[in-house]
Amino acid sequence: MGLDAYLPIWKQLSWEDQRALEEAATFRNVPKGTILHNGSADCIGVLVIKSGQLRSYIVSDEGKEVTLYRLLERDICLFSAACMMSSIRFEVTIETEKDSEIWLIQQETYHTVMERSAPLANYTCQLLASRFSEVMWLMDQILFKRFNARLATFLLEESTIEGSNTLEITHERIANHMGTAREVVTRMLKYFQEENMVSLSRGGVTLTDHAKLTELSE
Amino acid sequence: MGLDAYLPIWKQLSWEDQRALEEAATFRNVPKGTILHNGSADCIGVLVIKSGQLRSYIVSDEGKEVTLYRLLERDICLFSAACMMSSIRFEVTIETEKDSEIWLIQQETYHTVMERSAPLANYTCQLLASRFSEVMWLMDQILFKRFNARLATFLLEESTIEGSNTLEITHERIANHMGTAREVVTRMLKYFQEENMVSLSRGGVTLTDHAKLTELSE
Repeated sequence: MGLDAYLPIWKQLSWEDQRALEEAATFRNVPKGTILHNGSADCIGVLVIKSGQLRSYIVSDEGKEVTLYRLLERDICLFSAACMMSSIRFEVTIETEKDSEIWLIQQETYHTVMERSAPLANYTCQLLASRFSEVMWLMDQILFKRFNARLATFLLEESTIEGSNTLEITHERIANHMGTAREVVTRMLKYFQEENMVSLSRGGVTLTDHAKLTELSE
Repeated sequence: MGLDAYLPIWKQLSWEDQRALEEAATFRNVPKGTILHNGSADCIGVLVIKSGQLRSYIVSDEGKEVTLYRLLERDICLFSAACMMSSIRFEVTIETEKDSEIWLIQQETYHTVMERSAPLANYTCQLLASRFSEVMWLMDQILFKRFNARLATFLLEESTIEGSNTLEITHERIANHMGTAREVVTRMLKYFQEENMVSLSRGGVTLTDHAKLTELSE
C-alpha cells in the first residue's frame, strides 16, 4: 500500500497533486530511539506514519522532557516541517519510540500543493487542530486538574481491595465512582496506558507499574 | 471600511465567496466585559476584530483563570466557531477587555467557503498555528521557565537603583544583563505590558504595577 492509502483526502486531490506528493515522498524504515526532528532549525518534511510510534515532546533548558502527544499508524506529523508555516514559532522534538515505517514528504512540495488545494489545506487544518487539542488537554491537566492523581489513587486502592493487579471494571463504573464522565476516564486511562502504567483490555484494567502510579497519586 | 479590509486574503477569494462571507457577517459593538464565547457548547461564529481587545482564557473547576492570549485589531477568533472544526476538542472563554467593534461571521458560511477555497483554508491554518504558538509559549513558561520572575526582579531592582518608575534602558541592554537574547526580553516585556505591569516606550520601560511585579518576582 502506498501513500494514497494513508492520506484520507487522497481521492479529493487532483491527479497532478497526487503525482507531486508521490514524487516528493520517500519511504524510510526508522529504528526505535531515532530523533527525527529537533527544534525549528530542523525542517525535514511532513511525516506520514505507516507503522510504529513517534513521541513529540518539549525539553527544558535543564533537559527535563514533557511528552506532548504520540503519533501512531496513519498519523501525520506537521511539526517536522514547521518551516513551511511561518506562524509555527515553537520547538518540539520528535523521536521514534518503536521501530517505524514512515513516508517523508518534502515540505516545499507539501506546501505548494496545500497552497492550491483546498482539500489538503483543510485536512492540514484539522491535523493542526487535533494536535492543538491534545496540547490544550495537557495544559489543562498541568494547570488545574488533579484528576490523574485521583484516578491513580482509585486504581491502587481497588487493586489492594481486590488483591489483584487486574481489575474487572468498566470505564463507566470508574466514572460513576469518581463523579465524572466516562469519556474523561477513558481518555486518562489511555494516557496511563501510553505511559505504561496500566494495560487496558475489554472490560478490564491491569496495573503494570505500581511505583509510577503511586508517585502520581501523591 | 468593510470586512474586505480586515481579511488579508480577501482579494484571493472568488467574487462568489466574498459575497457569501459579507452576507454572513454582522457588525456589532460589544461593550467591555462581555463574555462572547464560553466553552464548546457555544458556537456563535468567527469573529473579526475591527477595534478593541479580546481575551481568551481557560477556567478551572474552582474558577481559576489563565489567560491564553489576546486578540487585537485585525485578529480573527476561530474558537468562537469551534463547532465547525471537529478536531477542536477544548474549551476556552473569550471576553472583551475593551469596548470592541467586531464582525461576526456565521460559522456555516465560513466553513463552506473554507472547504472550497484554498486561500481561506490556508489562512485559517496560519491563524490556528499562531494561536497554537502562543499557547506553546505559555506552556513553556509554565513548565520550565522562570524567566518572567527573573525579569520582574530585574525591573524592580533597577527601579529602586534609579529611584524612578521609568527606566531608560533598551531591550538589548536588559538581555545583556540577564544573559539572554533580545527577542526573549522583548516578548516578555510585551506580555508584561499586556498584563498592565509595565508600559513600553521608545528606549524605555515604565513600571506601572509594583504589586503585580513583586508578586511575580517571588
